[in-house]
Amino acid sequence: MKIGVIGGGQLGRMLALAGTPLGQQFAFLDPAPDACAQALGEHIRADYNDTDHLRQLADEVDVVTFEFESVPAETVAFLSQFVPVYPNAESLRIARDRWFEKSMFQDLGIPTPEFADIQSQDNLDAAVKRIGLPAVMKTRTLGYDGKGQKVLRHPEDVVGAFAELGSVPCILEGFVPFTGEVSLVAVRARDGETRFYPLVHNTHENGILKLSIASTEHPLQALAEDYVGRVLDKLDYVGVLAFEFFEVDGGLKANEIAPRVHNSGHWTIEGAECSQFENHLRAIAGLPLGSTAKVGESAMLNFIGEVPAVEAVSAIEHCHLHHYGKAFKAGRKVGHATLRCPDIAALKAGIAEVEALIDK
Amino acid sequence: MKIGVIGGGQLGRMLALAGTPLGQQFAFLDPAPDACAQALGEHIRADYNDTDHLRQLADEVDVVTFEFESVPAETVAFLSQFVPVYPNAESLRIARDRWFEKSMFQDLGIPTPEFADIQSQDNLDAAVKRIGLPAVMKTRTLGYDGKGQKVLRHPEDVVGAFAELGSVPCILEGFVPFTGEVSLVAVRARDGETRFYPLVHNTHENGILKLSIASTEHPLQALAEDYVGRVLDKLDYVGVLAFEFFEVDGGLKANEIAPRVHNSGHWTIEGAECSQFENHLRAIAGLPLGSTAKVGESAMLNFIGEVPAVEAVSAIEHCHLHHYGKAFKAGRKVGHATLRCPDIAALKAGIAEVEALIDK
Repeated sequence: MKIGVIGGGQLGRMLALAGTPLGQQFAFLDPAPDACAQALGEHIRADYNDTDHLRQLADEVDVVTFEFESVPAETVAFLSQFVPVYPNAESLRIARDRWFEKSMFQDLGIPTPEFADIQSQDNLDAAVKRIGLPAVMKTRTLGYDGKGQKVLRHPEDVVGAFAELGSVPCILEGFVPFTGEVSLVAVRARDGETRFYPLVHNTHENGILKLSIASTEHPLQALAEDYVGRVLDKLDYVGVLAFEFFEVDGGLKANEIAPRVHNSGHWTIEGAECSQFENHLRAIAGLPLGSTAKVGESAMLNFIGEVPAVEAVSAIEHCHLHHYGKAFKAGRKVGHATLRCPDIAALKAGIAEVEALIDK
Repeated sequence: MKIGVIGGGQLGRMLALAGTPLGQQFAFLDPAPDACAQALGEHIRADYNDTDHLRQLADEVDVVTFEFESVPAETVAFLSQFVPVYPNAESLRIARDRWFEKSMFQDLGIPTPEFADIQSQDNLDAAVKRIGLPAVMKTRTLGYDGKGQKVLRHPEDVVGAFAELGSVPCILEGFVPFTGEVSLVAVRARDGETRFYPLVHNTHENGILKLSIASTEHPLQALAEDYVGRVLDKLDYVGVLAFEFFEVDGGLKANEIAPRVHNSGHWTIEGAECSQFENHLRAIAGLPLGSTAKVGESAMLNFIGEVPAVEAVSAIEHCHLHHYGKAFKAGRKVGHATLRCPDIAALKAGIAEVEALIDK
């Protein structure tokens, strides 16, 4: 079976590393000449709206999937004429737009921070009055890793904020006094079977994920599974989906979904019986899902801007390096390390060792 | 770092799957147009004695290694002029030839079945008189998976046996009434540090490995490590080496070594902290070695001739499929499955399930 992937970055690369042992082959459509997945499959170098090359991809592969959610709706619609596309167009339409996303959470009875649609500075002024400050303003589409958003703390931050974010449709979200950030990575098969990985505690820095720690018997696991299950069924979703929540007052408030394999699930390569990458491929290929059970105690640390010396990372016990083979650049995710340990004490020691390399 | 591999079969493929996350790139020199590793790196399609293409490989890569031991000595010598080659020429010279190999065991005080060099039918007749029957006659070089050998049970089997095996240099080995076959996979770094995986119980059928089960605290582990350590140090070996033994009377008799990653070590991909493939690459790249500790209870079953339906293999709990992407052909290793289980009972159940698929 040949899998087409829109996007050829590290997520595509890790999909191919997981799918090759299943006998799958890969083609990546990505305009970047140095797309880092190309070492592991065919690289169709083209823009995401280049219908000639999209048609070529569709003709070559058995199923198409995505590495990122901001893919144009027209791309999905075009591909869907010729080849099965997972996740489906509706899932991508919703996940791409923070307003649609939050509205869906509300419709499904999933608690979420207060929010308002912002199409103008007037909208913003009115929404700030209703929701109060502090609040976070985000572009409805295309934001990621802390880009396309602005924290509004004081009334003067509100002045001109709509223009500052590019005068594009935005969403205003009420500030949530959260005690932690967690994500649930889930996978749903073509036949509707759904499996969930353990909840992951996430720590961000400057809006970019820095550290994920897989939990054991988290008290909010069942609640999170309930919420995520509602979304998966509503969207008739196929593949892996990640759902980020705020922990608030011993409950959960929905932050956002990512309709794809997710950075907070990278630890599953070593730390779960079957990784999020293999499970995504199993789901879209119509294979039985794999076990989401933990193997040991795991954490993932991102390498942002640069990867420490391979010698140093390799020397840390229980540490598994993932070097994406991308050019180093400030603020760019260029690799990660997973620690898979026999116990929590070893995990904590390992995290400290990797952090020391990062901070060097 | 770019790694050159002589041979582009499944071992090369699994090396690349292990090395890509370390940031390594791969080039495979292999004459086969359909070499299955080519999905994961550059394919230099050339014969193993094609010096132009060997030179091209040497110029492109930082280090060269081998997927099989029967590579011509001239190839190793040629490459060594331009690029570091691991394992070294002497290791390959010894491992390639059963006479040199057995003689080395004897020199190092490692018990081995009685053996004799056979250069003619007269040699054979004399050796049979000394060693007795049953005995096994094997070509000194180029045999694998039960090819290039003949079991001599009765005097009439001896008649014309030298011609039958092609009138090439052979070795006669006394029959060993073994109670089991085990192998020890070891890795030695450039600085001489050596690590050993747990002993593996192997079951062969028609001379081809069928099932490997990783042991826990095997009573012969220390003895095997002693024997293998002698060979590694003698050869100033760098990389992974597999050593196959017969279990006889509660002790070990040396059968043969393979100077490379080995089929009986495939279970380490899921079943050990750091796989044999990653550890081979760490060793030849001059990186610190990874842990050889077991993760759970593991076994590996070969798929010979064909891979069962991917749906069926994927449906087995704790089962990890490795489909090599090779054309199916009787007697050919085309894939394997690894079971990594929380306990022995689950492992036994899983083995039975995979065996049922194979025997279908």
